[in-house]
Amino acid sequence: MSNVKIVIAGPRGNMGKEAVKMVEATDSFELVAVVDSKHDQMRLSEIGEFAGVDVPVYTDMEQCFSEHEPDVLIDLTAPAFGRKHMELAFAHGVRPVVGTTGFTESDITSLRAIAEEKQLGAIIAPNFAIGAILMMKFAKMAAYYLPDVEIIERHHDRKLDAPSGTAVKTAELIKEVRRQKQQGHPEEHEDLAGARGADYDGMKIHSVRLPGLVAHQEVIFGGEGQTLTIRHDSLNRASFMPGVKLAVETVLQLDTLVYGLEHIIE
Amino acid sequence: MSNVKIVIAGPRGNMGKEAVKMVEATDSFELVAVVDSKHDQMRLSEIGEFAGVDVPVYTDMEQCFSEHEPDVLIDLTAPAFGRKHMELAFAHGVRPVVGTTGFTESDITSLRAIAEEKQLGAIIAPNFAIGAILMMKFAKMAAYYLPDVEIIERHHDRKLDAPSGTAVKTAELIKEVRRQKQQGHPEEHEDLAGARGADYDGMKIHSVRLPGLVAHQEVIFGGEGQTLTIRHDSLNRASFMPGVKLAVETVLQLDTLVYGLEHIIE
Amino acid sequence: MSNVKIVIAGPRGNMGKEAVKMVEATDSFELVAVVDSKHDQMRLSEIGEFAGVDVPVYTDMEQCFSEHEPDVLIDLTAPAFGRKHMELAFAHGVRPVVGTTGFTESDITSLRAIAEEKQLGAIIAPNFAIGAILMMKFAKMAAYYLPDVEIIERHHDRKLDAPSGTAVKTAELIKEVRRQKQQGHPEEHEDLAGARGADYDGMKIHSVRLPGLVAHQEVIFGGEGQTLTIRHDSLNRASFMPGVKLAVETVLQLDTLVYGLEHIIE
Amino acid sequence: MSNVKIVIAGPRGNMGKEAVKMVEATDSFELVAVVDSKHDQMRLSEIGEFAGVDVPVYTDMEQCFSEHEPDVLIDLTAPAFGRKHMELAFAHGVRPVVGTTGFTESDITSLRAIAEEKQLGAIIAPNFAIGAILMMKFAKMAAYYLPDVEIIERHHDRKLDAPSGTAVKTAELIKEVRRQKQQGHPEEHEDLAGARGADYDGMKIHSVRLPGLVAHQEVIFGGEGQTLTIRHDSLNRASFMPGVKLAVETVLQLDTLVYGLEHIIE
Repeated sequence: MSNVKIVIAGPRGNMGKEAVKMVEATDSFELVAVVDSKHDQMRLSEIGEFAGVDVPVYTDMEQCFSEHEPDVLIDLTAPAFGRKHMELAFAHGVRPVVGTTGFTESDITSLRAIAEEKQLGAIIAPNFAIGAILMMKFAKMAAYYLPDVEIIERHHDRKLDAPSGTAVKTAELIKEVRRQKQQGHPEEHEDLAGARGADYDGMKIHSVRLPGLVAHQEVIFGGEGQTLTIRHDSLNRASFMPGVKLAVETVLQLDTLVYGLEHIIE
Repeated sequence: MSNVKIVIAGPRGNMGKEAVKMVEATDSFELVAVVDSKHDQMRLSEIGEFAGVDVPVYTDMEQCFSEHEPDVLIDLTAPAFGRKHMELAFAHGVRPVVGTTGFTESDITSLRAIAEEKQLGAIIAPNFAIGAILMMKFAKMAAYYLPDVEIIERHHDRKLDAPSGTAVKTAELIKEVRRQKQQGHPEEHEDLAGARGADYDGMKIHSVRLPGLVAHQEVIFGGEGQTLTIRHDSLNRASFMPGVKLAVETVLQLDTLVYGLEHIIE
Repeated sequence: MSNVKIVIAGPRGNMGKEAVKMVEATDSFELVAVVDSKHDQMRLSEIGEFAGVDVPVYTDMEQCFSEHEPDVLIDLTAPAFGRKHMELAFAHGVRPVVGTTGFTESDITSLRAIAEEKQLGAIIAPNFAIGAILMMKFAKMAAYYLPDVEIIERHHDRKLDAPSGTAVKTAELIKEVRRQKQQGHPEEHEDLAGARGADYDGMKIHSVRLPGLVAHQEVIFGGEGQTLTIRHDSLNRASFMPGVKLAVETVLQLDTLVYGLEHIIE
Repeated sequence: MSNVKIVIAGPRGNMGKEAVKMVEATDSFELVAVVDSKHDQMRLSEIGEFAGVDVPVYTDMEQCFSEHEPDVLIDLTAPAFGRKHMELAFAHGVRPVVGTTGFTESDITSLRAIAEEKQLGAIIAPNFAIGAILMMKFAKMAAYYLPDVEIIERHHDRKLDAPSGTAVKTAELIKEVRRQKQQGHPEEHEDLAGARGADYDGMKIHSVRLPGLVAHQEVIFGGEGQTLTIRHDSLNRASFMPGVKLAVETVLQLDTLVYGLEHIIE
């Protein structure tokens, strides 16, 4: 089987750098070009940290696609560009693997329609950390048998928003399977406001922020005489690359758009 | 639908007591009799802690089955009796849910043959803790994506054997799916013997024994930049009852023998 | 040295039962009588679970003290009686070890004045769990070097109040030594109210409530590149007895009132 | 008060780089020179990552001391040089803060004799992570009250030795205060060799090695009905700098050699 020809958009970002490394390190993958907001017509090897990665840089994605006819676009740019880049990819028969966020439900519906019309696979994954995806998948499975659950997520203290996107996503997935219930004692009360955390459909979510933390989440299920805890600790963006790789391998087999890596993990 | 008619063998043991409570508390279940090594022909309500549970006690299981024609036998006696009790149950058309250990592979093969010939469901579950079963199931799923894994199990210091049966069972399940590998650095060495724990197919298992612990297990998967941990904490045998209940409900739908609660959880 | 003569008030409560067992099991302690709201003039051995503990029961504490001249009163009754019982003890030259809560600062000031005037030791301990006391002591020590800290306490879901008394006490102790600071990012925001927990002097406290939990607390300190976590897990009231025993031994050496077991642990 | 004049030996190592940053960032500290095995007579700012740090580089430590008369030497070189560098420092009236390992007891005895004769402070610290030091200090304190203890240390799978130096050091400190006892059940047995970990004076130590881990240790104390856990998680060498800073501040007040940061933390 010939190699998978890949274009990476956004190679200079944190995720992008790791993706360049991962594609270069994978025997069955071939990086054919990158798309960047600057450095048009340069070689990637001429830019800072990419010594030895001798592929062309384009600012015009269409030109890049026309000249290289890649199999897969890995898009690690910014939310503002995700939809446009996917439409360009479909127009050129390229299967997109997209790591940006910010898609609305109607975006996804219309993009899926294009994917299916063109019989092209596409994957949008707000989270490529396989460990995190497995955590969410397991949480959803456990919630059916043990419906009392709280989430504690912990991040460095430079994070602005609380709760984290992963925590909310986990709660959404749990909500799909558990019988709705308001947890805690019906007459419980907070002597200090906020002690019991944020409420999501009767579940509680707690957000810890401290220096020395990176990105961590615990999902704790409680039942009579037992607890079951699923915990993910993420140290850096290298942890995302097994997920990006799996997405590239899987998108070649698909003929529709899949939103969320959890749907391609069994 | 009429109630499920249940006989419990071993009502005075720790598990037995909880099972009596659980059956009594479940609307769709009906306790029709118990089988006990003593107290033949008494009423259960006359024995110590069972005030109010007015069912007959038998020492002869066949007599019990003949007189009550139960749907399900919950056997919580001892390993020495498990096989015999299952054969008696099959002979009387009763579906056994068995919590004893000590079955050999040939026991299971021959018992399954009887079950299938009679078209009777049967469940043998060395572990009824749904939380523990889920832990093992998730561990097996995760090992496919994250093959580096160690197990830490923690129990009270009155436990004689190490590692625990659950830890070994977890390692067996992981072994079925992960690519075999010897973990740790190829040149690692122990300056104090035993530091790296027990080896099972290249995985390490560690057994902690302390007062104040009950029964706990962590399965820790490591990948580049991340760890995924699945942990179960069990405080008492009440934690087994949701599993016994699920087994009773499921055994009615089966026409073969299932060994291990994990095979009836989706 | 002769044995320490002890009276226990409140022998039928959860703590009281454990205290009776502990005193009986300690060679250097002698249980001489109990004070109970009922059963006056009976023998303790005649009451339910105390078979073999043949000491007299009094409803009148003064009569009890007059007839037995104990060295120490262990008071495990209720907040409403704590102050009165201590005054009676001081009047009879008995050193009180008190596990009830609800003392005001002025109660403590006036009780300490009596203790010092009479040169009698006294210990009031809202928490006898040595593990919890050590956790609080260590938390206070760590906060000087690592001032960023959050508290997560976890209890069964029958608990009504949040945060727990131990969590608030821990935060108070930390406040005494750390330089005040508002933790988290100055511009952090909650997308779901309560996610960041309760605020105590710039520290955050999170309260988890689930079935299968008992009583647990983590104090997490974060610094550049590291976290330090102190965690206590309490399963039952037996965990309080080493603390009660230490208090009895210590109160004999004191000539003032000490509030909080942390002040007698080095 | 004038600034503390500091020389750093080993500025290009992992610890050295962080130390240069820390000294530059501390108002009361002044970096006057560095000692390096190469680059003699260059400016540090001419070497790779030290742009802006305009101090001279020496390969000859004596020449450096003679020309700059520093108050403190921070030695972050290698075990082979630790002793020699300390002797040079003492000879020039410089107080050494040493992060290298490999000192024998007789090294320490003879170096302490010099320090005391010269009335010069000196600190040797195999571990500068304040969090780890606090963990060990707390572990030693807790062991007096809760003598049943096990240690679990977790590191990345490139680590060669097990157990870690910190784990053994922790066990040594605990041994100083706890009553000796062989933990676990007297009749416990390993069905897989090594399950119960390494034995140190009756305590058990377990070493976990997985990718995705960095450097972590848990010390778990068990007592009737409770456990107390002290855990340190270290992500990178930045975590050592608060300890180096504290050592520099403290060494100025000393007139003897202190081995181990734990002896300067209260």
